[in-house]
Amino acid sequence: MRSLSTLDELRKTRFSLDGTVGLVPTMGFLHDGHLSLIRRARDECDHVIVSIFVNPTQFGPKEDLAKYPRDLERDLRLIEPLTDLVWTPSAEIMYPTGYQTWVEVEAVARPLEGAMRPGHFKGVTTVVAKLFNAVQPHKAYFGQKDAQQVAVIRQMVRDLNFPIEIVVCPTTREPDGLAMSSRNVYLDAEQRQAATVLFRSLSAAKELFEAGERDAEKLRGKMKEVLASEPLTEPQYVSCADYDTLEELTEIKGKALLSMAVFIGKTRLIDNFVLG
Amino acid sequence: MRSLSTLDELRKTRFSLDGTVGLVPTMGFLHDGHLSLIRRARDECDHVIVSIFVNPTQFGPKEDLAKYPRDLERDLRLIEPLTDLVWTPSAEIMYPTGYQTWVEVEAVARPLEGAMRPGHFKGVTTVVAKLFNAVQPHKAYFGQKDAQQVAVIRQMVRDLNFPIEIVVCPTTREPDGLAMSSRNVYLDAEQRQAATVLFRSLSAAKELFEAGERDAEKLRGKMKEVLASEPLTEPQYVSCADYDTLEELTEIKGKALLSMAVFIGKTRLIDNFVLG
Repeated sequence: MRSLSTLDELRKTRFSLDGTVGLVPTMGFLHDGHLSLIRRARDECDHVIVSIFVNPTQFGPKEDLAKYPRDLERDLRLIEPLTDLVWTPSAEIMYPTGYQTWVEVEAVARPLEGAMRPGHFKGVTTVVAKLFNAVQPHKAYFGQKDAQQVAVIRQMVRDLNFPIEIVVCPTTREPDGLAMSSRNVYLDAEQRQAATVLFRSLSAAKELFEAGERDAEKLRGKMKEVLASEPLTEPQYVSCADYDTLEELTEIKGKALLSMAVFIGKTRLIDNFVLG
Repeated sequence: MRSLSTLDELRKTRFSLDGTVGLVPTMGFLHDGHLSLIRRARDECDHVIVSIFVNPTQFGPKEDLAKYPRDLERDLRLIEPLTDLVWTPSAEIMYPTGYQTWVEVEAVARPLEGAMRPGHFKGVTTVVAKLFNAVQPHKAYFGQKDAQQVAVIRQMVRDLNFPIEIVVCPTTREPDGLAMSSRNVYLDAEQRQAATVLFRSLSAAKELFEAGERDAEKLRGKMKEVLASEPLTEPQYVSCADYDTLEELTEIKGKALLSMAVFIGKTRLIDNFVLG
C-alpha cells in the first residue's frame, strides 16, 4: 500500500492507474463500517483509494474538531490488506492560505443535520468535491449511517455533472444494534449501554410501519416515546421524512427516512432507518 | 463536426476520445475572439470541444438575458472547420427542476464586476464547474477580455483541485482598438464610434505607466479623464488593481490590472490591460 500526502504525488500515481478506481473518503479512526466500504470498493473496482482527512470546515465552532479521535498508525494497519493507496493530505494542503471557494447544496442540506449544524454540509460538499477532483474516481463509497450526507452528495453529483457513481453501503452495527461511529469512543460504559436506545427507537417505529401505520406523526411519536424511556438521552431531532427531499411527512406514501440525533452526555449520536 | 445536446451523448462521445481534450466554453454569437480561442485549443490539443450555452444564472434580474444575441446556425457554420464537437445543452439540461447546487468563489469575485453584478460570478463558477465535469478537458480556454472571470476561474480551479490547465488568450480587437464582444452588436453607428474610448483610455494610462508612473490613483485619473472626453459614455468603475487579488492599488509594484466598465447608451462594455 502506498501512502501519499501531497496533491502532486496523488495525481501522478492516479494517472498511472489503469482500470476503474473506487474512492472511500474517511475522517480516519476507522471501524468496521469503513472497512465494509473499502471491501465493497475492492469487490467492484480495479483500484481502491482511501482518503483520511479530518475536514475542519465541516465542524461548527462549538463542535468536536480538536478532540475528534485520530490514530493514523492504527488506520494504516487496518486498511493495509485492503487498499492500494491511501491519501492523507494535511489541512494546509486542502485549505492553503487564500482558500476561498465553496460548494453548497441548498434545500436538501437545510433540515435535520443541516438545521442543527449550520455550515456542516457546506464543508462536506466542498471537501468531497475537492476529493472527487483530486482522485477522479469512477465510484465513491459512503455509508447509509450518514443518510442526509448521502442525499446531499447525490444531489451535488447530479447537479454538478460529476461523472461518478455514488455507492451507498448499509450501516454497520454492533451486536446490540448501535450504529458504528468513530464518536462511540466518547461514551463511558453506562452511556454505551444507553446508546442502544437509538436502534430500539427506530426498530419500534419500523415495527409500526410494517404493521401498516402510515401516519408519520405516529412514527415520530413512537420514536420519541422509546427515547424518553432512557433517562441519559436528550433527543435533538426525531424525523420521518421523504427519502429524497428530506421534507417532513404527514403521510408515508413512497420511500421514507426515519432519523434522529440524540445527545448522550456530551456525545451526539445519529442513526436512521429507510422505510419502503 | 458532431453537435450534441444531452449530457449522456456528450459523455459517451467524450469517453471515446483518445488523447488530450481542449474545452472552449462560450455563450455563442461567436466572433474572432472566440475563434482565436478555438484555434489555440486546436493547436495545443488532440480534440477540441466547444460549448455554446447562454447561462441564465450569470445574468442579473435586470440584465440582458432575454435579448442576449443568439445565432446558433451561424455559430455552427463558423466553428465547423475548427472543431470536432460542439455541445449545445438546453437550460433544462443544465438546470433541471430541483437544481440546487452552487459553486462560489469569495474575495476575488467581490470587487469590480462582482460588485456591479451581484451573483454574476456565482453563476459563472457554477456553470464552468458543470462544464468541466461534463467535458473533463485537459485544458480550458478563456479570453483575457473577461479579466476578472479569468482570475475567479483560476482561483476555483486551484481551490477545488480541478485537474485542468486554464489557458488565457489575448483580447482580440477591432482595427480601431475596440475589444471584440458579442454585445458590440447593440451599438448604433455613433455609439460604436464612441466605444473606442475604452481602448484609448487604457492606452493613455498604459503610456503613463511605461513612462514610469507608479501611482495607481494617477492612472485611474488618466483613464477617467479620457473617458470624460467622450460625452456618450457613462463609466461604472475604473480600476487599477493587483493582478491576482484584484484589490485596488495605491502604488504599483508587481503585475497590475487596469480595467473598466462603461455604459454607452444602454450597452455595458468592459475592457482591460495587464501592466508589468
